This record gives sequence, C-alpha cells and structure tokens, in this order.
Amino acid sequence: MLVEAEREQSNGGRPRARLRVPAERGVLIGVDVAETYVHVDAFDAALTRLSRHQRDLVDRSEPGYVLGEVADCIREAIVANPRQVLGVGVSMPGQVEPSAGVSVFAPNWRWADVPVQRMLRDLLPVPINVDNPLKATTVAELWFGAGRGVYDLVTVNLGTGVGAGIAFGGELIRGVSNNAGEWGHTTLIMDGRRCRCGRRGCVEAYVGVPGIIATLTEEFPEHRYGGDDQQRFVANVRAGLEAGDPEAGWLIERLSHQLGEALANLVNLLNPERIILTSWTATALGAWLLPPTASRMLAQSIAGSATASQLVVSEIGENPVGLGMATLALEHYLEEVGLPARRGFSARSDG
Amino acid sequence: MLVEAEREQSNGGRPRARLRVPAERGVLIGVDVAETYVHVDAFDAALTRLSRHQRDLVDRSEPGYVLGEVADCIREAIVANPRQVLGVGVSMPGQVEPSAGVSVFAPNWRWADVPVQRMLRDLLPVPINVDNPLKATTVAELWFGAGRGVYDLVTVNLGTGVGAGIAFGGELIRGVSNNAGEWGHTTLIMDGRRCRCGRRGCVEAYVGVPGIIATLTEEFPEHRYGGDDQQRFVANVRAGLEAGDPEAGWLIERLSHQLGEALANLVNLLNPERIILTSWTATALGAWLLPPTASRMLAQSIAGSATASQLVVSEIGENPVGLGMATLALEHYLEEVGLPARRGFSARSDG
Repeated sequence: MLVEAEREQSNGGRPRARLRVPAERGVLIGVDVAETYVHVDAFDAALTRLSRHQRDLVDRSEPGYVLGEVADCIREAIVANPRQVLGVGVSMPGQVEPSAGVSVFAPNWRWADVPVQRMLRDLLPVPINVDNPLKATTVAELWFGAGRGVYDLVTVNLGTGVGAGIAFGGELIRGVSNNAGEWGHTTLIMDGRRCRCGRRGCVEAYVGVPGIIATLTEEFPEHRYGGDDQQRFVANVRAGLEAGDPEAGWLIERLSHQLGEALANLVNLLNPERIILTSWTATALGAWLLPPTASRMLAQSIAGSATASQLVVSEIGENPVGLGMATLALEHYLEEVGLPARRGFSARSDG
Repeated sequence: MLVEAEREQSNGGRPRARLRVPAERGVLIGVDVAETYVHVDAFDAALTRLSRHQRDLVDRSEPGYVLGEVADCIREAIVANPRQVLGVGVSMPGQVEPSAGVSVFAPNWRWADVPVQRMLRDLLPVPINVDNPLKATTVAELWFGAGRGVYDLVTVNLGTGVGAGIAFGGELIRGVSNNAGEWGHTTLIMDGRRCRCGRRGCVEAYVGVPGIIATLTEEFPEHRYGGDDQQRFVANVRAGLEAGDPEAGWLIERLSHQLGEALANLVNLLNPERIILTSWTATALGAWLLPPTASRMLAQSIAGSATASQLVVSEIGENPVGLGMATLALEHYLEEVGLPARRGFSARSDG
C-alpha cells in the first residue's frame, strides 16, 4: 500500500524516509473552521488537492448551526469526489481537549466543552478527528513546508489571534491536555494591556490584529487605515507601506520590536532550529516585518540559541490548516490500518 | 545485567517499567560545578550514594584552574570507591553546546566556548559527559522525584539564576543546540529592569535572588535583610517570615505575583502536567511562596491548561544536580553497551 520512494538526508543530518501513498487509495478531507467561514479541501491520498468547498458563517454561532454547516460542506466535498473517504480532519478555533470537547477563543462564540467530534460523527458516517489550527499548521509545515527536514520547529500564527505550534524531534508537542502552544497568552508586559482572554499584557494583546490596531490608534488617533474590518486594516497598512507612509513605517517598527521580543522568548525557552511565521498577517506584511523582527529577535536571544535559529515566512500559501488537517487524517488512517506514520516521515504529492 | 523489577501504572495511565541495575556493577559519578564550589557525588550502579567530595572555588575562575580542581575532586571520589567507573557526568553552570564547548552565565566567570569535555578527558581516563544543571535536575526529578510517572514536566530552578528543564513524553527536550530551558531570559516586562544577560525585563531580573533583593530594596531602602550575601539574604527573609515581619510578607506577595505570572507562561505555552520548583530559594521559601504563587499561576493560565497543571516543590533534597548527572552518565553507559535507557524508565535504588 505504501511506497517508500527515496531516502533523503535532512538538514539535521539524520536520514529521513519519504513515503508516497498511492493517490487513488481514497479521499482525505481537511476542514478549517474559523469565526466567519468554513473551508473544506478534498485531497487524494497523495495529498494533492482535488476540490475546495466553502460556507460563510453569518450572525449565528451556536454549535448546532455551526456544525450543521460544517457537515453540509463536508458532504458536498464527499459527493464531488466519489471515492472511499479515508478520513476527515476538522480544525476548530480554540482549545481542543483529547476527548474533542472544544472550547473556543472567539469574540462572538461562547462555546465550552462542546463535544464536536461526537456531534459531527452523528451527522456523518466517516472517520472524523478534531484538532486546532496551531497543530494543523505545524503538521503542514513539517510535511510540506519550511519545516521539512527540521526537527525542532516552531510555527507562529499571526492573525486576529496569535499562537504557536511546537515540534521537537519532528514530533508535534501537544501537552498533557492538548493545549500546548498558547504563546499568544504568555506575557509581553506584566500587568499591561487587557487581553480578550482576561489576562493583562499578553503577547496577543499587542501583536494580534486588534492589538496592532490599538497600538496605531494610540499613537495616531487620526490615522485612516480603518479598524472595524481587520482584513481591510491590514491591506491598508500594506498599501501604506508600499506608498512609504510614515504612519505605516512607524507601526512596523513598533510591531517588530514587540514581535521580535516575543519570538526571542520562544528561542530562549525552546531553542528551535527554525521559526515559521504563518497566516494572513504574515503573508500580507512579511516583506516589511521580517527583517526588523528577525534582527530584534536575534538581539534578544541568548548567544548559543540565537546563532542556531532562523526566522522565515511560510511559503505554503493558502490554507495550511486544511492541508495539515488532511495530513493528520492520513496519519490517523495509517495508524488504524497498522502503519503508524511517524511525523519524521514526509508524504509526497504526485501532482 | 539489567533486571526489570516490576511494572507500575504511571499517573498518565501508561505502563512504565522500572529498571534495577545491579549495584555492584560499578561506580557512577555526578559532579555539580557552581560559581563557588565543586560537589562530587559517587554512586553505585543502582544510584545509591556512596560518598561525597567537595572543593571551594575561590578568587580564580580561569578554565585551567577550575577544571583542575574538578578533576582533582573526581580523582578523590574514584580513589575512595575502587570499582570500575561506568561514567562521570559533569554539570557546568551555563550553556553547554553538543560538542561540550561551554559558555558560562556567571558574574565572575567569562568563559566562551571552553572545550570542557576534552579538557577533562585529557586529565582523567574515564568516560565523561558534560551538561548543565537544568538538564541534570530534570533527569533527577524524572527518575527519582516528583517527575516520576509524569510525562510532560517542567522543573524550575530558583537561585541566583533561574531556568527551566523541560520534558515531553518523559524525554528531556534539548533544542537544536542544547540550550532549551532559558526561561530566566524570557520577558516578564518588555523594556523593564536590566538583566545581567544584557536584555531588559527578563524573568530572572525579577525572580533571581539579585532581582528579589533589588525589589525589596526599591520598596524598603532601609530593610535589614542584607544583600551582599545572597544565601544570607534568603535566610534572613525566611526568618522574617517566621517572625511575621511585614517587609518579608510584602516581598512574598510581590514575588509570588511575578513568579506566578512567569510560571503561567510555561503553563500556557507548554501545557505540562506538573511544574516542580527546585534549588535553594525554593527550599528555603517554598512553604510561604507556593500557595500564593500557585494561585496566581492558575489565575493567569488559560482554562484548559490550568486545570491540568500542578505546582509543587521538589522533595529530592540536597544536590539533585549530582544525582541527575550520575543518572545521565548511567544512560550514556547503557547506550554504549547497547542498552539504551529510555527516560520513560526509572532506575531504582536498593539502598
């Protein structure tokens, strides 16, 4: 069933096998549920994308509604790809307990211990696993992105919320209740700005998009980048940077100071080989943000770790979450048929 | 050579083997080198302590002098225990590179890339491995202390310097250049108090003993706890707590606020099952410090991680570093003879 196509030398100097799973084996489905949308990607067993499906989530946030929309969208993907469904991986925006009870960090959602996995399985007769976007993104980077060949890796998600996915020795770190990675809720300034999590001075309160908007508005109350629509705000900042606008320049300088410090904390505590910035803020602002942030990060890192750490922006492109969840679904499938896929292995697309 | 004595159920629900290594197999030596002393402990192969040897390091800090004293003290331990030396583990206070080049964090030492392992091997014809106290303490806790049966563990060292040892799945996390764990040099207050590492606002600048002295002196310039001698300062604070002195009470309240916040960062980022406070400050002040610190830590932790995390004070007692380094020496020995000891296994003393 599996073909070990080749062996490659990883950057870490250890041999690493690539597995090629025959594409026609069946369909894998990766689902990215966010506060405002559901994206469903269908892949063949070699993880080449076959189709994309999506729904907007509007106005309502109760679990029955959201999960009904998720199930409908998955059903659409199954109908469009009439082959055996090897597995479905669903990323939910929040804390996913091992039992797949999900609590959500989202301004408009107030979920606590919603049994997402059980509810989806009641709606769909296919194997379903639930995880969160930090874990999914990290798996996508390990298999297909800038994490290939890297054993000690951190992915950092920059969006409305911010968080980290951590891998050591090529293995995803989950923690005792699957909540490792809440870097957004570590301290940047003790007793500082209020965070939506209830703490004060969290990293997210400064480098999440609402925090970035607050920083600019504190300094330039009359700025014209907007703020009600986060995506539009970031696009406006990018346009400002392209135009050489001093307000946007000031913002990048301030943000890189804060972000570089918060990333240095990861370097000093975890000593990773590579940190990958992902998600839409990183994609939009990376060209301007990366150089000063890397410089600040290295200046704030202890000597022996700084030299070992690289900061890069993800090159996976759209939806690493869907790709990562499909990869996790493949891992679950391989485990179930008795072929545990170590995360040290890479799947390879034939497409 | 090894006897698997029993199987126990760990707290994590996974079975865990205990290994008993015949005591008469040989001698293991664990060495704790600090800024002011060398402690050498000799153990039998079942890790029961046989003898202790020590030297004071006075006035001089150049590598030739320090390592000469270390080698002399190890030689004394070997002479006192005339059996085969299975291994020597040496803990150095600083950053230990995989090549055992050591850079030291110490006010009076200015070592950079000193090849400690090679220099000691030139002086002593026995197997020698070099690591740092964070790693040693964590191994000691995993095998013999509050880390037994715990898979996702952080040990936090509270002394002049502060740092963390991290284990996931019962395995010590080292990072790409063996520097993981520099929690003391993560941020508590961005751009805050100057730290001896050169950064500003580090955790260590507040919760390391010099930081604690600075905090008290800022608030109570006339306090009578001293400050030139750190050990005496901590003993005086303890006496003040026993006497109900309000200055000492204020200090514990302030310190627990800072320490609880900094520990919550570990909970949120790593989601460990247990955090163990170790070293002399923890031993001296733990009875007063633990309850308010645990309370602050839990209040500052995200919901799904807070409920899963316990904060305890180490019960290993004197010199977990020597015990941990001897255990690491045993692991190296077992690997060399083809019996890799997984850190999921526990050695057991017959003593």
